[in-house]
Amino acid sequence: MQETVDYNAWFNRKKAFLRRLKKDMETGYFDKELETLILLLNGFNDVFTTSSCSGRIMVFSSKRPWDRKSIKVYLKSHDPISVGNLEKILEVSDDKNLWFVLQPPIFHVSCLTPTRAQELLKIARNIGFKHSGIISFARTGIVVELRSNEHLEVPLRLYGKFIYRKSSLKSLVKWANKLLLDSKKKIFKLETEIRKNWLKSGR
Amino acid sequence: MQETVDYNAWFNRKKAFLRRLKKDMETGYFDKELETLILLLNGFNDVFTTSSCSGRIMVFSSKRPWDRKSIKVYLKSHDPISVGNLEKILEVSDDKNLWFVLQPPIFHVSCLTPTRAQELLKIARNIGFKHSGIISFARTGIVVELRSNEHLEVPLRLYGKFIYRKSSLKSLVKWANKLLLDSKKKIFKLETEIRKNWLKSGR
Repeated sequence: MQETVDYNAWFNRKKAFLRRLKKDMETGYFDKELETLILLLNGFNDVFTTSSCSGRIMVFSSKRPWDRKSIKVYLKSHDPISVGNLEKILEVSDDKNLWFVLQPPIFHVSCLTPTRAQELLKIARNIGFKHSGIISFARTGIVVELRSNEHLEVPLRLYGKFIYRKSSLKSLVKWANKLLLDSKKKIFKLETEIRKNWLKSGR
Repeated sequence: MQETVDYNAWFNRKKAFLRRLKKDMETGYFDKELETLILLLNGFNDVFTTSSCSGRIMVFSSKRPWDRKSIKVYLKSHDPISVGNLEKILEVSDDKNLWFVLQPPIFHVSCLTPTRAQELLKIARNIGFKHSGIISFARTGIVVELRSNEHLEVPLRLYGKFIYRKSSLKSLVKWANKLLLDSKKKIFKLETEIRKNWLKSGR
């Protein structure tokens, strides 16, 4: 690559991220479903994780589902939700646009070497983290984004009007909950594959 | 990278892809909106494009919106659609699940060198191709996937039942058409940025 990773710069970042991770785990802020995988990855001496999400359902108002400016979040859940949760939001929302979004598991992993980044990418894509890729190179590391493909972007309100059948919210919630749980199984699959491929060759 | 790109293998692939591209353009199969960008990219001696889509609206039945097995496509349009198009489909569909999907512009570009791949990635991500990354390395090239972020995955039928308000289809179509046109503007932005960054430094 154009820039070579500087070991000291990379390792200093790893130490800082491990400190943050430890704090997040102690305060209970950290998502339990990710714990084993995240600890496994950070145990390799040429890898560390920077951010991660185990997949979630969100309901929020914003102009478009990927706009984060002037976003108003009504619901953010890493677990299945109930249709009651959604109905309550719809009763109070008078937003122009309101979105129901399912986001898949996503991880950012900083690798010390291009070889490691490439290996990780291959393992992840093979088990269905189909939207994965190397997203940046810098002196401080090669960052791989691992992203599974379960996602929904559904408008509930558009142009100030409710556009979903109220009687159908149950189906939508049931479906989204199912996809959420399916996507979470892939976290364990990823963990299994990494163990199988990387532990046999030592750290 | 682990594997070094072999110039002859890469160049043979480039020649094959250029032949296919020429044929697609002659038969009118090729998407006109992409022509200038694709010709620009292929004009660089360390780059070629393998596949591309300028963004589209699709309506199809399949278990989940990313399943391609036993998919039944009702509509695939690179241009804005009318609500009439959609209504006709809903009259005939008795599918278990039916999806309305907006896909953003997407390009696969094979680069000869890691530096070029990295430059392309940086330019693309900066102008809003937010889901871009290097997706593979091989003897035959380093493949960058450029993917913009406009997308919708909306269930129209779930569990065998129509779940969208019929009176709201117009809003959904209007919104999707707007996003489709917004996403297409980014193709020209990408072209402009590549010209600005790469032509000044020569080919």
